[in-house]
Amino acid sequence: MNLIFCIHNHQPVGNMDFILEEAYERAYMPFFEMLKDFKDVTINLHFSGFLFSWLLENKPDYVALLKTLKERGQVEIVTGGMYEPILSLLPQEDGTGQIRMHADLMEEVFGDRPQGLWLAERVYEPHIPLVLGKAGISYTLVDDNHFKAVGLTEDDLYGYFTTEHEGHRLSIFPGLEFLRYAIPFKPLEVIDGYLRGIEKKEGDLAVFGDDGEKFGLWPGTYRSVYEEGWLRAFFSYLTENKDWLKTITFSEYLSNKPAKGLVYLDCQSYKEMGEWALPPSLSKEYGACVSETGSEKRNLLKGGYFKHFLVKYPESNDMHKKMLSVTKKADRNGEAKRDVFMAQCNDSYWHGVFGGLYLPHLRASVYEHLIEAEKRLDPEKAFVTASMKDINMDGEDEAILSNKALKAYFLPREGGVLYELDHKQTSTNIMATLTRRYEGYHDKIKVASVGGATDGTKTIHDVVLAKEAGLDRYLYYDWYRRASLIDHVMTQDVTWDVFYRSAYVEPGDFVKERYVAGVRNGKKSVNLSMKRQGHFWKDGQGIPLSIEKTVRLDAEESALYVDYLVEGEIREPFLLGVEFNFSFLGTGGERYMEIGFEKLPLTVKGIFRSSRRVFFHDPYQRIEPAIELDDEPLSIWTFPVEVVSLSETGFERNYQSTMCMPIWKVDLTDGSKSIRMKLHVNGIGSNNHLQ
Amino acid sequence: MNLIFCIHNHQPVGNMDFILEEAYERAYMPFFEMLKDFKDVTINLHFSGFLFSWLLENKPDYVALLKTLKERGQVEIVTGGMYEPILSLLPQEDGTGQIRMHADLMEEVFGDRPQGLWLAERVYEPHIPLVLGKAGISYTLVDDNHFKAVGLTEDDLYGYFTTEHEGHRLSIFPGLEFLRYAIPFKPLEVIDGYLRGIEKKEGDLAVFGDDGEKFGLWPGTYRSVYEEGWLRAFFSYLTENKDWLKTITFSEYLSNKPAKGLVYLDCQSYKEMGEWALPPSLSKEYGACVSETGSEKRNLLKGGYFKHFLVKYPESNDMHKKMLSVTKKADRNGEAKRDVFMAQCNDSYWHGVFGGLYLPHLRASVYEHLIEAEKRLDPEKAFVTASMKDINMDGEDEAILSNKALKAYFLPREGGVLYELDHKQTSTNIMATLTRRYEGYHDKIKVASVGGATDGTKTIHDVVLAKEAGLDRYLYYDWYRRASLIDHVMTQDVTWDVFYRSAYVEPGDFVKERYVAGVRNGKKSVNLSMKRQGHFWKDGQGIPLSIEKTVRLDAEESALYVDYLVEGEIREPFLLGVEFNFSFLGTGGERYMEIGFEKLPLTVKGIFRSSRRVFFHDPYQRIEPAIELDDEPLSIWTFPVEVVSLSETGFERNYQSTMCMPIWKVDLTDGSKSIRMKLHVNGIGSNNHLQ
Repeated sequence: MNLIFCIHNHQPVGNMDFILEEAYERAYMPFFEMLKDFKDVTINLHFSGFLFSWLLENKPDYVALLKTLKERGQVEIVTGGMYEPILSLLPQEDGTGQIRMHADLMEEVFGDRPQGLWLAERVYEPHIPLVLGKAGISYTLVDDNHFKAVGLTEDDLYGYFTTEHEGHRLSIFPGLEFLRYAIPFKPLEVIDGYLRGIEKKEGDLAVFGDDGEKFGLWPGTYRSVYEEGWLRAFFSYLTENKDWLKTITFSEYLSNKPAKGLVYLDCQSYKEMGEWALPPSLSKEYGACVSETGSEKRNLLKGGYFKHFLVKYPESNDMHKKMLSVTKKADRNGEAKRDVFMAQCNDSYWHGVFGGLYLPHLRASVYEHLIEAEKRLDPEKAFVTASMKDINMDGEDEAILSNKALKAYFLPREGGVLYELDHKQTSTNIMATLTRRYEGYHDKIKVASVGGATDGTKTIHDVVLAKEAGLDRYLYYDWYRRASLIDHVMTQDVTWDVFYRSAYVEPGDFVKERYVAGVRNGKKSVNLSMKRQGHFWKDGQGIPLSIEKTVRLDAEESALYVDYLVEGEIREPFLLGVEFNFSFLGTGGERYMEIGFEKLPLTVKGIFRSSRRVFFHDPYQRIEPAIELDDEPLSIWTFPVEVVSLSETGFERNYQSTMCMPIWKVDLTDGSKSIRMKLHVNGIGSNNHLQ
Repeated sequence: MNLIFCIHNHQPVGNMDFILEEAYERAYMPFFEMLKDFKDVTINLHFSGFLFSWLLENKPDYVALLKTLKERGQVEIVTGGMYEPILSLLPQEDGTGQIRMHADLMEEVFGDRPQGLWLAERVYEPHIPLVLGKAGISYTLVDDNHFKAVGLTEDDLYGYFTTEHEGHRLSIFPGLEFLRYAIPFKPLEVIDGYLRGIEKKEGDLAVFGDDGEKFGLWPGTYRSVYEEGWLRAFFSYLTENKDWLKTITFSEYLSNKPAKGLVYLDCQSYKEMGEWALPPSLSKEYGACVSETGSEKRNLLKGGYFKHFLVKYPESNDMHKKMLSVTKKADRNGEAKRDVFMAQCNDSYWHGVFGGLYLPHLRASVYEHLIEAEKRLDPEKAFVTASMKDINMDGEDEAILSNKALKAYFLPREGGVLYELDHKQTSTNIMATLTRRYEGYHDKIKVASVGGATDGTKTIHDVVLAKEAGLDRYLYYDWYRRASLIDHVMTQDVTWDVFYRSAYVEPGDFVKERYVAGVRNGKKSVNLSMKRQGHFWKDGQGIPLSIEKTVRLDAEESALYVDYLVEGEIREPFLLGVEFNFSFLGTGGERYMEIGFEKLPLTVKGIFRSSRRVFFHDPYQRIEPAIELDDEPLSIWTFPVEVVSLSETGFERNYQSTMCMPIWKVDLTDGSKSIRMKLHVNGIGSNNHLQ
């Protein structure tokens, strides 16, 4: 009987140096230090491109060790998309291009060209064999779940299959979920029993494929895997049992054994991903169903679809659609294409038990590389332009204003908000915010233990930890997207606190509602006008109220000018708040905000006295946004928008943006109300923090 | 509130004229005769290309009526793939090409080009928006099931969505399952209650899309829909309620109403298809789960994947892979491409409650058009060739022998059988057989009522009818594929009856087992040698036994010569049977077989005395296959291979092939045994029965 053991080591593009260093010290390095002592153990190995490039530059001895193991025949190198993209999110050509780029690098370092591919997050779609075929790939690895989803059973899966798309053939291995949960967590007797069970059923092959970070970086595993000797014992076990259990490379198995037959897989990933990709309430229910249901019927339960992350998180969709639009233009520009490839790194586009989308520095990395690519494609953009186009593919046009300093995206469909503001000099989208949302796992927060360490015998899916106490106090959910130029029409009794908690009702129907938009182009200046004929609702009656906002961008200035005109038949005063959100990367150090001349931390909460100026200083992103108001507001409200999300080490609080909202008291009995404001973005030198 | 009512009328390529005539008389015609009296009722309409071409030729007045309704604005024409293919089974270019061909025809007849597409069997895959986008299509219709499968709920579905693939945008409507089951089966009060329920929830749109054959052709519906007046009452209801319920075309709705947002759908079809595409045991279990489970959890249950039909039925896979291989070559030959398009008609490739794959004349039509295409692409093929290639994509090579008269496909992996034999003159694959298999619905056969009519108030999914009594007596299942040159090594006590029932055990391990194959090319003659070093199993011991069969094809002859050499160390005589299966299209009329000079019907069952010649006469396919044996067998066994399958009108028995097996008594104590045989195929004139 044969065992294929496949390790996947990955760090997202834009991750911090110290994190890579830690992962190297605790997982990547000790694993291979151990492996080199067990010459009869053969593994299959994948490094994603950002991490491998870092290793090449920073750990030449380590790469030399890998080469030695490769030359000994102990390691088969497996390729992947260069920057670990989800292939199904990309145009086919990009998928093929990313694979070729990674395979080139592997061939350069290790001597021969990999034949097999690690499929990022095992997100499979039917057209994948075509993408892989065009890149010269002959095999890949998915999960048993993929096969069970089309009706196969565990006993069918001790081998490999062939599949095809449009005649492009691909060999495809099923990785076994049992082994994913057992290695390196369970006692060897349990693993031995399982493998002997397969042998008894005349199974010829068991495949394990999982993240290398499990071997030392996941909570408690450094102790269990290395200090307590799980890995040494496991490799000893494999060595001692090599008479009946042979560790083997994918390629060796493929050249010696026939396929079990043809198979067609639909859109699947591993079981847990199916849970995460569902809407949150269903996700919770699905998780419960999976654990309740007997193993037979369990295969009839199928989770959500990976691309639903784009629906679940419009913030993810915005990155994805910007990427699609930029990559099309970058086909003939190698440097721009590499930036797009870096922006395609999967982590930022979804969220499960890892940070992913919830990590601001990863989203910032996506925007940085996309803006960089745009600059490379059009470096001398001198014109100011206004256009309307359905960028996000929701069926309605967004509005885009652009000059050589800024590119601003507005959503007339949803409140006419400003939802992306790219500052070109620093390649920063200062509006890369995230909305506070309910997640299925939030219900577990009250039972999470704080600071409790795990002993390494539980997988990440069993552990419920929290990084600080009282996280449930941060579980507030937004009923709209945290963008800028959000028009709140509120009664006078609304308090900062209910606003912070999203626990009030607005009489105005402007937030999230449709504005009629139009752009006007001029040579030196363009503008966008958005108007909504809405209401002020009182006692079931809608009193007519309209808001018109006109945004102007001039050719030579890094600023948006916004003119508000509010008109209506309301006979009582009300509050008008115009909400802004700025996404800074962290809040400490020398970062600060100024309301008037009062210097405050970016996490300050509360109501501030009237001022015509709010200014932000972020030397980390080298950016200084400022709001200037012609008409002095009643007050200015502010707070940090923080979410509670899951990470490898438990629940954590994550700062996403600083909310800032000037508020005016409006009384229309005397006629209409006009407000003029300016949103200015200044760069401090050049932005190199994410390079 | 709006109601989109969409009718899809389809007849498979190769269907018989009298069936089209009946469908016209009972459904297509009376539906529109009725519609023309209700000027306030607007519908959306799709005809597949084979049917529409027939109507154009045979029913010009009917087409004129449709044009009148179209001009009145009562009908919007919807396009589709010309010959109603499952788009996801085709190369993208073929999908686009088929749509363009159909849209051209619609534009020619009705004046303007359709913007929307009826998606055959609503089999959706993520890349569909790309295929449709390239064909200029802006919207399509799927089922609510597709949306629920990614986590949406019924209340989200009273409108349409946008989706995209690689930036190609598509608007997509969810058809409601409730309406599919209610129209035209339930009382109007039920439908009215449902629609008013949607209006109460402020739903803006309900979409119904289903087969036009439900209106008159399905069992009992002619009486209920027309004679008892269901349709008149329904149209009257729509007319009377037009103040709050407006029937509308897709295009009108699209131009007046925004999308509900972005959505991504994975590989789905309607709920029932998910059941059918599963392996049979799971299919049964799934069906039970769906009916047991509460509506909330029901959405977590997801059925099988459409392409699994290709795994479930290798006969379907063989057609599909032949199609893929021919279409690639036909890219620059319009006539050949049209034949391939006709062969892509979906019905033959799958099976649910309709005949589909189980209908021999539809499989024959696929092969006819593929062979026609091959002839057009290479009309003067004078050479004789032998080659090995993985045609069926199972990872191992098949062997192909071809000359200007025949093309023969062998499966070394599975018993070295001959599984396709194309007779070029008549464009017939005389081995287009079907294996007797267990289907999940077979367990219902004992409770099916015979000859019972339905009253039209039940949909096809609720009805359990049987066309004859005692069908359970035909439920025998084959343990191997019904091909030819199947090598049975049997003990002497095996009877015709246990063989017919597949209810015995063979001591030989040749059927379904791997033969080592090699081909040799020559200028005037080629051959294929297949050998298996197998066993005769007795008392747990495998006694060595080998079978070598060498197949020769000469350049100028429409015949295969097969030489058998049997060697081994067995000390007792045994039976060697070489099984053939010929797929005739029906068994009656002037068709017959001859064993020696005895003339017999094609459905004869039993054991016949020794003869060196078996001859078949089929004037319908204009073909005369014959087996000639150098070595007189002990006897010849024969029976019709019949399956029990579901059709619109209940369970039915379907003749698939005539099994014919010469049997020799082999005694190897005197040395090896040689047998020489010739399989000859003669054409009678030219084949025009399927034109």
